[in-house]
Amino acid sequence: MADRQTLCTIRHGCLAIQGNTVEGVYKEKEFQKLTIHSDKDTVTDYGDCLIIPGMTDLHLHAPQYAFRGLGMDCELLDWLEKHAFQEEKKYSDLEYAGRAYRMFLNDLQKSPTTRACLFGTVHKESSLLLAKLLDSAGYPAYVGKVNMDKNSPDGLQEQSAEISVNDTRWFIEKVQSECHLVKPILTPRFVPSCSNLLLEELGELCQEYALPVQSHLSENPKETQLVRKLFPNSHFYGDIYHHFGLFGSHSPAVMAHCVYSGEEELAKIKENGVFIAHCPNSNTSLASGIAPIQKYWDYGLSIGLGTDIAGGFSLSMFRAIQDAVSVSKLYWRLVDSSLPPLTFSQAFYMATAGGGAFFPKTGTFLPGYEADVVVLDDSGLPCPFPLSPEERLERLCFLADSDVVAAKYIQGRLVYARPL
Amino acid sequence: MADRQTLCTIRHGCLAIQGNTVEGVYKEKEFQKLTIHSDKDTVTDYGDCLIIPGMTDLHLHAPQYAFRGLGMDCELLDWLEKHAFQEEKKYSDLEYAGRAYRMFLNDLQKSPTTRACLFGTVHKESSLLLAKLLDSAGYPAYVGKVNMDKNSPDGLQEQSAEISVNDTRWFIEKVQSECHLVKPILTPRFVPSCSNLLLEELGELCQEYALPVQSHLSENPKETQLVRKLFPNSHFYGDIYHHFGLFGSHSPAVMAHCVYSGEEELAKIKENGVFIAHCPNSNTSLASGIAPIQKYWDYGLSIGLGTDIAGGFSLSMFRAIQDAVSVSKLYWRLVDSSLPPLTFSQAFYMATAGGGAFFPKTGTFLPGYEADVVVLDDSGLPCPFPLSPEERLERLCFLADSDVVAAKYIQGRLVYARPL
Repeated sequence: MADRQTLCTIRHGCLAIQGNTVEGVYKEKEFQKLTIHSDKDTVTDYGDCLIIPGMTDLHLHAPQYAFRGLGMDCELLDWLEKHAFQEEKKYSDLEYAGRAYRMFLNDLQKSPTTRACLFGTVHKESSLLLAKLLDSAGYPAYVGKVNMDKNSPDGLQEQSAEISVNDTRWFIEKVQSECHLVKPILTPRFVPSCSNLLLEELGELCQEYALPVQSHLSENPKETQLVRKLFPNSHFYGDIYHHFGLFGSHSPAVMAHCVYSGEEELAKIKENGVFIAHCPNSNTSLASGIAPIQKYWDYGLSIGLGTDIAGGFSLSMFRAIQDAVSVSKLYWRLVDSSLPPLTFSQAFYMATAGGGAFFPKTGTFLPGYEADVVVLDDSGLPCPFPLSPEERLERLCFLADSDVVAAKYIQGRLVYARPL
Repeated sequence: MADRQTLCTIRHGCLAIQGNTVEGVYKEKEFQKLTIHSDKDTVTDYGDCLIIPGMTDLHLHAPQYAFRGLGMDCELLDWLEKHAFQEEKKYSDLEYAGRAYRMFLNDLQKSPTTRACLFGTVHKESSLLLAKLLDSAGYPAYVGKVNMDKNSPDGLQEQSAEISVNDTRWFIEKVQSECHLVKPILTPRFVPSCSNLLLEELGELCQEYALPVQSHLSENPKETQLVRKLFPNSHFYGDIYHHFGLFGSHSPAVMAHCVYSGEEELAKIKENGVFIAHCPNSNTSLASGIAPIQKYWDYGLSIGLGTDIAGGFSLSMFRAIQDAVSVSKLYWRLVDSSLPPLTFSQAFYMATAGGGAFFPKTGTFLPGYEADVVVLDDSGLPCPFPLSPEERLERLCFLADSDVVAAKYIQGRLVYARPL
């Protein structure tokens, strides 16, 4: 993308990578004229495939992957009680966690996702296992051990803020010492499940370790009502995170959903440079609503897309693009006809450069960006008339099956090649 | 399905087929005790696969398959002008039509669809070609040559009602004489593109040949306004079809969309037993809106699902199920909280028994129903905990890729087996 509005494509192009980063994008003929190649250079020809920047999944719960596509018959708070928390309890068992996380990773490999912000569970060991699995597979992901010390079920709720913080400290230091690529991220589940003391101490950890933060914000009507009840003196939901230094004022923060963010909250999001993880599949599946993303876009906020496994049922960022466009059309039709639907280019931008900016330099092929690259094979989608590269890309993002990813590079390193 | 509300599953079951029809469903042990097997009986063991009734796609435009996933940046009437009509013009060329229809059929084979109501184009020869291709592949589909003699672009609009009717007559007789399984269906495109004379003569053809009818109804605000302007004296959109005998009073009729059907229209739909083809992907993609399907369900109307290729971008009936559930959640949240979201069972019923009733006895495994059977392999979707058959089915419908269909039978005959 040259800018937020313009999708640039090159027919018969070459992407030049130097070390971890993009050196430049050339037309084939220009590239052949370049004389900078050294003996060590290798050229891989992907034929008629499409080559795009890697996609960032800005919000997902890895331990919920096991039950994706099931139990989506209730709203957020009930769904957490009945489904999500019940599954997450199992991750106290490292053997189960390993089995489930390997299934998740196996599918992640085939996807166009190259970066992700992941929630683990409260369990420090299995969250570390998740981090190490991603690290071994070549993903420079953010992984968080979840904090929740109130309003949570037995067997999942942490016994005290102190235990929660100590376990988080252990997790942070383990990840920092044992992982090469994966980094820790502070992960208070959401306001209702964290005591004031916990939020306060997480704010201190945030400064001590200079860590980014991920959480949930203004997702669902009942959830926002509950938060207002719990914090009657706060101006808005995000103000609570902000009060404790967990809202982008000290380090980058990403907040999932923002379906019901009011003007004050949006102003603070903008002021603090907080990222919004727009999760349209989840917001639909849990009947939360539709976030007015075009408004946030016009407002200049930083927006990426998230699958929100398993509030969302699909791990595919292609599906996140589809859903971002789709729900924006319904928002235009049913809620506010002054907000035009998102274009494909906008949604593609969010999936790549938009979310990639959290990492902070990936998701485009501009020189100096980290070379996260996805090679897409659309030969399984024949068409009786010729298509431009833009049309091939749009079509593929709407029609893609899981086997369209032919290869995937992260920081210039091949992490996945589709079996022949 | 035992009834509209209850999804029945049998673990380790056997489906017995006699000729074209379902003889019964048994538990494995019961089946082994049966002594009705003759020497000619064959038993196919599909191991741990799921076996479900075939799905009916109650509304799709085969000639639009080529541009699915493209050009969904406008509303219905503009989209027809800019995209659909431009593509359909090409079907005057039999060579192009053959190439495009074969691509369509190739993908249809891999899908869970066993029955379909298809629109061709105005062109009689290429519509016949579509019918013959489906016939050869074993699909007892309804195929319609489209009628449109006004408000349509040059190169597509038929020159007169007389020519349109004569071509339709030719098409009907050719299909009836040259196809074994495929049957013709009258297909006035929609009210705005048909002259009164054409609608009148189609009404006569309907009686003469005792043919079913398919068309569009109350899809989009601008379209319904246009229809009101064209027929200011009609009580409602469907009343125009009804006036000409094309609305289920003489033979079965299926109407796509019904997003904006008012009480009078619904009453006539019920009185005449008109089928509604609910096309949630299309209604979202063209920003038409959301049909209040739960209301129609409670009202006892006959409802099936349609992909509406290429207003909808996906040929997958799994996707139609997903979208039916998804948009009903958004309808509940954004429009009318008195209408609960559709359950998975309801959407699955519509995709199978609901639409299948148009054919008229397929889509369930009740004895005597035509044996349309889809064998689904979910081994590519591992899960770390055990799942019930119902859970496996729901999950598969939400997560399915195109390669989950292991085999497909129509009227007891194997029409597709996935390559090993």
